[in-house]
Amino acid sequence: MKLSHVIESQQFTVPLIMELCDRAKDMERIVARGGTLDYQNKIMAALFYQPSNRTRLSFESAMHRLGGRVVSTDQANMFSSEVGGERLEDTIRTISEYADVIVLRSSQKGGAARAAEVSRIPVINAGDGSGGQHPTQGLLDLYTIIRERGTLDGLTIAMIGELSEGRTARSLAYLLSKFDRVKMYFVSPPELQMKPDILEYLDRKNVWYSVESQLEDVVSKVDVVYLTQIRPGRLAGQEHLQNYVVDSSIVKNMRSDAMVLHPLPRTLELDKTVDEDPRAFYFQQARNGIFVRMALLTMLLD
Amino acid sequence: MKLSHVIESQQFTVPLIMELCDRAKDMERIVARGGTLDYQNKIMAALFYQPSNRTRLSFESAMHRLGGRVVSTDQANMFSSEVGGERLEDTIRTISEYADVIVLRSSQKGGAARAAEVSRIPVINAGDGSGGQHPTQGLLDLYTIIRERGTLDGLTIAMIGELSEGRTARSLAYLLSKFDRVKMYFVSPPELQMKPDILEYLDRKNVWYSVESQLEDVVSKVDVVYLTQIRPGRLAGQEHLQNYVVDSSIVKNMRSDAMVLHPLPRTLELDKTVDEDPRAFYFQQARNGIFVRMALLTMLLD
Amino acid sequence: MKLSHVIESQQFTVPLIMELCDRAKDMERIVARGGTLDYQNKIMAALFYQPSNRTRLSFESAMHRLGGRVVSTDQANMFSSEVGGERLEDTIRTISEYADVIVLRSSQKGGAARAAEVSRIPVINAGDGSGGQHPTQGLLDLYTIIRERGTLDGLTIAMIGELSEGRTARSLAYLLSKFDRVKMYFVSPPELQMKPDILEYLDRKNVWYSVESQLEDVVSKVDVVYLTQIRPGRLAGQEHLQNYVVDSSIVKNMRSDAMVLHPLPRTLELDKTVDEDPRAFYFQQARNGIFVRMALLTMLLD
Repeated sequence: MKLSHVIESQQFTVPLIMELCDRAKDMERIVARGGTLDYQNKIMAALFYQPSNRTRLSFESAMHRLGGRVVSTDQANMFSSEVGGERLEDTIRTISEYADVIVLRSSQKGGAARAAEVSRIPVINAGDGSGGQHPTQGLLDLYTIIRERGTLDGLTIAMIGELSEGRTARSLAYLLSKFDRVKMYFVSPPELQMKPDILEYLDRKNVWYSVESQLEDVVSKVDVVYLTQIRPGRLAGQEHLQNYVVDSSIVKNMRSDAMVLHPLPRTLELDKTVDEDPRAFYFQQARNGIFVRMALLTMLLD
Repeated sequence: MKLSHVIESQQFTVPLIMELCDRAKDMERIVARGGTLDYQNKIMAALFYQPSNRTRLSFESAMHRLGGRVVSTDQANMFSSEVGGERLEDTIRTISEYADVIVLRSSQKGGAARAAEVSRIPVINAGDGSGGQHPTQGLLDLYTIIRERGTLDGLTIAMIGELSEGRTARSLAYLLSKFDRVKMYFVSPPELQMKPDILEYLDRKNVWYSVESQLEDVVSKVDVVYLTQIRPGRLAGQEHLQNYVVDSSIVKNMRSDAMVLHPLPRTLELDKTVDEDPRAFYFQQARNGIFVRMALLTMLLD
Repeated sequence: MKLSHVIESQQFTVPLIMELCDRAKDMERIVARGGTLDYQNKIMAALFYQPSNRTRLSFESAMHRLGGRVVSTDQANMFSSEVGGERLEDTIRTISEYADVIVLRSSQKGGAARAAEVSRIPVINAGDGSGGQHPTQGLLDLYTIIRERGTLDGLTIAMIGELSEGRTARSLAYLLSKFDRVKMYFVSPPELQMKPDILEYLDRKNVWYSVESQLEDVVSKVDVVYLTQIRPGRLAGQEHLQNYVVDSSIVKNMRSDAMVLHPLPRTLELDKTVDEDPRAFYFQQARNGIFVRMALLTMLLD
């Protein structure tokens, strides 16, 4: 299936997601047996306007696992020592001449789409500003669930935390809406709840969802507890925040085959007492991110 | 032909430039057909005392296209977390023991020459301070012209913008002076004109040049319009600056086979309405920079 | 011999040091004849919480000389553009899923040990805070001496400079204490002398040492003069500092087969008049660092 750029969750159809997950599984097998892939002539340019080691190093490791090469900056605004920055479009046109694929962390919503318009090589959106998208995170979340459950159809999920500004929860909600009989609980203090644009989208797609503010009631009902960071200072009182913390006392109410996911990094919302629970899958998510990004890179470079 | 270091434009004779351009053409062919080169055991160290992604990533991509390896910093002053920086000479001696070639962006004029004096491995000057040199930019400019025109002899060129401090225009003027019957127009507001050292050099070499302040008269007469950035705040009035802006209305007066070059990044002096004109070669320059730097690296490493 | 992590000098027994030195010698031979090693599927993650180009680029070059791959940051605290940093343990668990070995420069004493506790892949301590350790520096110091002298038994060494906070001198003292009949002179202004913890350790191990404040008396008696930086502002008067400067007039009193070592960078304590003396081995140390780090990486990755 043809893939030109990876810009937003909406572009991923169910067949494309399933092909991606199949490829990711292949990648996992190849890496496990120490096999090599044939991308040694390909260069990935990682252009980060904000440093984000987690995402940058994941993409870079993925490219290396493919046998490929990387050039990289996390000060993408310093394009020249004389003039400093330049228009995003000029930077992208230039990097198009240096590399074979661009991984872009923009500081502006819509930056990846603007880049894709002028780029001569594929662009992957690695996050574009607050309220923007981070589609590869959503895709690796899906892969992590499929890898355990076999399917996304019929999934019941609780998304918990700062949903209003969370790129990852927003991307995941978009993506999950494409599968059959998915149920979503959005658990958040009212001031940080999922924004109307997503809720209206789910309404149009006839996806079942429920806006909640109590954690305890929900966790026992779901297949997946998906946590996202609550940034310091976003909630008035610490006590209030305590109502949204998942620790071992919360996890013990979950089903034995349920999963706790978190895109990381965490602040207080996910207690380290959960780390050794077999239902904790958040470091596995980090691992799966390598395979999903390898798979995406092959789909763009082939 | 033997090449030990790349420090300044003056060191490049015409035969050396022609060999470099031949090698660059070879590199372009090899990359186009997906061929591989045999530098997998060679390490290039990119030592940047000021961040300049354009130059750094170009060199790094060039080394990767050769099959080689890269270690890199754009905080070359942070040599130790305890002491911070150290004498340039000590840093270079140390890096000489780590790598096979050094690409140096110094913050001081003459830094590259000082580095070459103590280095045990080849040093390439990737820009050494305001008023200093940036010879590989000049070489890729030459290659871009030769690639289209076949020769530099008889070339008529207009250099436009902030010529007084512009490393790239200065390097290019030096290099072009070596070819036969080259004519140069320097078009700039008087306060930003080419400095006497270059003009006296051209006088000594009997190179035809003309110092101009009007853009319109000149552009229709030349093979190449070479633009350089005018840094914000360098000109008193915005209206005054308007007289040095090249846009589609200026370009339409150029010959049909003429070329617009710009080392990038641009500010206001080059309007994006020119981008789709077939005479716009500034992104092609970025592309050619990879091949010229590949060629230089092979000449230093062989 | 099995090696899981490289955290502190104390973990290195004499047989382990000797195996490491043998391997380092092999690495030197392989690099000299342009041979290749078979680590092309291995990824080293360089996680630096403080920039230190000397150490980072040395490890990265070592990994490249092995044929391996590198992902790298010297802003390891910028793990996410939204939240910034995270607990060291979470970062290490995540990077464990991306790479095959971690090189960690922590800003906190004990950081490397904490990392090793949670990491699923080997961790190498590349410096952990003021007063902490930097064991690979000590190991390359040992290798540099063995490479010339053939053995460490019976070595007489003077350590000079700011010994109180110097990680390198502290690591070296620990390591040398394991060999037979080693004698150590600690030459330093009283306020910067070696701390009691090391002296007590040497007492317990029955190692001969002498605390000195006069340079001239000592240098003629030793096989190795080991200098370390005196950080600016650590000594009250410049004149006082002069008493601890090694220059050619000091070196001429050394034995003809003695060695001057310095981990670099230097400030005033080592004059450049020594650089061309055949007893100057500090740039050779930098070179040897590559081979020792290659050897360590193979011991961890095999």
